[in-house]
Amino acid sequence: VNTNAAFIGEKLGRVGVPVDEAVVVGDDTQQIAAAVGRGLQGFDVAVLTGGLGPTHDDVTVEGVALALKVKLEQRDEVWAAIEARYRHMDRTVPSGASRMALVPSGAEILENRWGTAPGLHLVKGGHHLFVLPGVPREMRGMLEDSVLPRLKRLPGLAPVHVRSIMTAGVPESTLSEKISDLIPGRDHAVRLAFLPGYGGVELRLTTQQDPAAMDRLAEQIGERIGSSLIRDAGDRDVVAYAGDLLRSRGETVATAESCTGGLLGKLLTDRAGSSDYYIGGVVAYSNRLKEGLLGVPATILARHGAVSAETAEAMATGAREQLGATYALSVTGIAGPGGGTPDKPVGMVYLGLAFPGGTSSRKLQLATDREQNRARAAYAAVDFLRRHMTGQISSK
Amino acid sequence: VNTNAAFIGEKLGRVGVPVDEAVVVGDDTQQIAAAVGRGLQGFDVAVLTGGLGPTHDDVTVEGVALALKVKLEQRDEVWAAIEARYRHMDRTVPSGASRMALVPSGAEILENRWGTAPGLHLVKGGHHLFVLPGVPREMRGMLEDSVLPRLKRLPGLAPVHVRSIMTAGVPESTLSEKISDLIPGRDHAVRLAFLPGYGGVELRLTTQQDPAAMDRLAEQIGERIGSSLIRDAGDRDVVAYAGDLLRSRGETVATAESCTGGLLGKLLTDRAGSSDYYIGGVVAYSNRLKEGLLGVPATILARHGAVSAETAEAMATGAREQLGATYALSVTGIAGPGGGTPDKPVGMVYLGLAFPGGTSSRKLQLATDREQNRARAAYAAVDFLRRHMTGQISSK
Repeated sequence: VNTNAAFIGEKLGRVGVPVDEAVVVGDDTQQIAAAVGRGLQGFDVAVLTGGLGPTHDDVTVEGVALALKVKLEQRDEVWAAIEARYRHMDRTVPSGASRMALVPSGAEILENRWGTAPGLHLVKGGHHLFVLPGVPREMRGMLEDSVLPRLKRLPGLAPVHVRSIMTAGVPESTLSEKISDLIPGRDHAVRLAFLPGYGGVELRLTTQQDPAAMDRLAEQIGERIGSSLIRDAGDRDVVAYAGDLLRSRGETVATAESCTGGLLGKLLTDRAGSSDYYIGGVVAYSNRLKEGLLGVPATILARHGAVSAETAEAMATGAREQLGATYALSVTGIAGPGGGTPDKPVGMVYLGLAFPGGTSSRKLQLATDREQNRARAAYAAVDFLRRHMTGQISSK
Repeated sequence: VNTNAAFIGEKLGRVGVPVDEAVVVGDDTQQIAAAVGRGLQGFDVAVLTGGLGPTHDDVTVEGVALALKVKLEQRDEVWAAIEARYRHMDRTVPSGASRMALVPSGAEILENRWGTAPGLHLVKGGHHLFVLPGVPREMRGMLEDSVLPRLKRLPGLAPVHVRSIMTAGVPESTLSEKISDLIPGRDHAVRLAFLPGYGGVELRLTTQQDPAAMDRLAEQIGERIGSSLIRDAGDRDVVAYAGDLLRSRGETVATAESCTGGLLGKLLTDRAGSSDYYIGGVVAYSNRLKEGLLGVPATILARHGAVSAETAEAMATGAREQLGATYALSVTGIAGPGGGTPDKPVGMVYLGLAFPGGTSSRKLQLATDREQNRARAAYAAVDFLRRHMTGQISSK
């Protein structure tokens, strides 16, 4: 799964070098050389990642030399840096490491502050080739450190302006219908992409020519979609937004989970600093624990079942009282793929919310995929809290 | 982030059609046509995904028609199926939907049981082009349903035999050193890939020519790496393996989490049927809850701190007793990026295990990345249980 390409595409676009094509080839000198040749011929800039390490299948540098018809030469300063790095780690230099000091003739060395293999910058006929390691952390660091500053110096760049409109709680198809007349056509200066994720759909507006038109369009879309819009979210998703809202009010949240098994707590603690507002939770996967740990009355479980609005609210109440938080969120449902009944099919989920002075619940009917259902339910729970905190749902 | 390419590569390789190249282009008719042309010229099989929907930027079919120099024609049976689908969903057919019934002349229709847009199969000069939706669930279903059966009928295929050696608890570099003399060279009939994940490193052996040599090599590697090998894992990772082990013994596990915030419970419940052995857990993100919910003595927290072997074992003991499980696993540590001290740096994590008759703990020193540290710690906790259950660590 190629996360490097997505990252590079995003970063290059923002400095005015939109990515037209991404290619993946195997660890094969000929295939790499062919791809490099095509990249240098058809594009102003080509960025290569991976295959710079010391093992037998790291052949990227050979492929580059073959494509550019230049020789490989050992660079003393690169070798010295490699030796120093292994010495620093208190390890002997492995036998293959000397290969990492082989560099195509004419290449400029790009320092790698995160790992061993250096990067390369080559120019041929005004076209730029950058060669970076494949390890995401090293690639990302070197892209920011060495590649983007060099690209910014290229003449005639029109940076891509980007505006994200973060939404939550409404599927892509509904959003698309709501704003169908606002979607810019192919010849418009502004482009609109729908980027759906479990946390909600991001509407991403981009333009190279007309940032003012983009801002106007963002306004119009925001007005149209109402409470699905996370106002002033910037690029924060619903979890980050709700977390910051809790922190700014000095409030806290606890969780009581059944079918999500801990995922809701995990989401709420993904960001550093979440202990400011998340105090903890209970995963009550069995009914016994819903009674024992959360104090859900046995009569509620018997009368309404574990997957019900009543149980969801009782779970939230129990968590709020026992853990001592401003709010408590609960999730109980049938994640699937098994366990459904005609009355309570797979994908039926109840969210519960306990707040100062009351409780509330919400029913979701999700699909059949377990992973998807769990993720959607957890994000929907956070959105339930966001809507409550921003006054968009009435309490009972 | 392209998950489709990885999935397609894996599936096609297994039926004997190894993937040499993956290309991503934008929603642009010309770019798509150029990529299709190159794909049909240079390769026996090309699989296209995405851009089959009803919106303005869905132009894949136009690109295919352009590349093959054929016309688009509306197919009545496709249009009827689209209408029926929307009727079934109780929705009116959106205005753009008729575009989904436009098909390049000569194409065979591939049924889409998961969504609206049909797939296509075209043959030109003995080269095969498959066009599938980009939605992963639809793409995966149709690949299995329609593409793989057609590919299997191609003459002269040498399926790729695959063997996975699942490991846990040892980093890639250590494994690589342990088996360095066993790693097959470039001219060997068997290839070996290291596929590191948070759950451990998968050593994947593949061969088209010599399955017997692959099996021998797998044996040798297994003997060499000892307890890091998950014996008889098949393609189960450490979480699935430990879950099945618990189920087969009729035993259960509970969790007590601090820095992982619920991730350990989430991992243990990723698979359907996990309620057979996972009963629940407590996320005690604050020290107050470590005392209140898990009964960790205040003296232990005061003397040793929340991140210590003593607290980890007390958390596990508390969870085991209060939740009533055979085993309890605990995680407490400094996930980062902030919160470290000279004594207890970022990445320091203690795992605790409570079992019938005792407790045990293990210290990890991870890195600086929060997401990585949390994932590694959660998987390491499961591996801690696996090693205990298979007699690979002594109890105290």
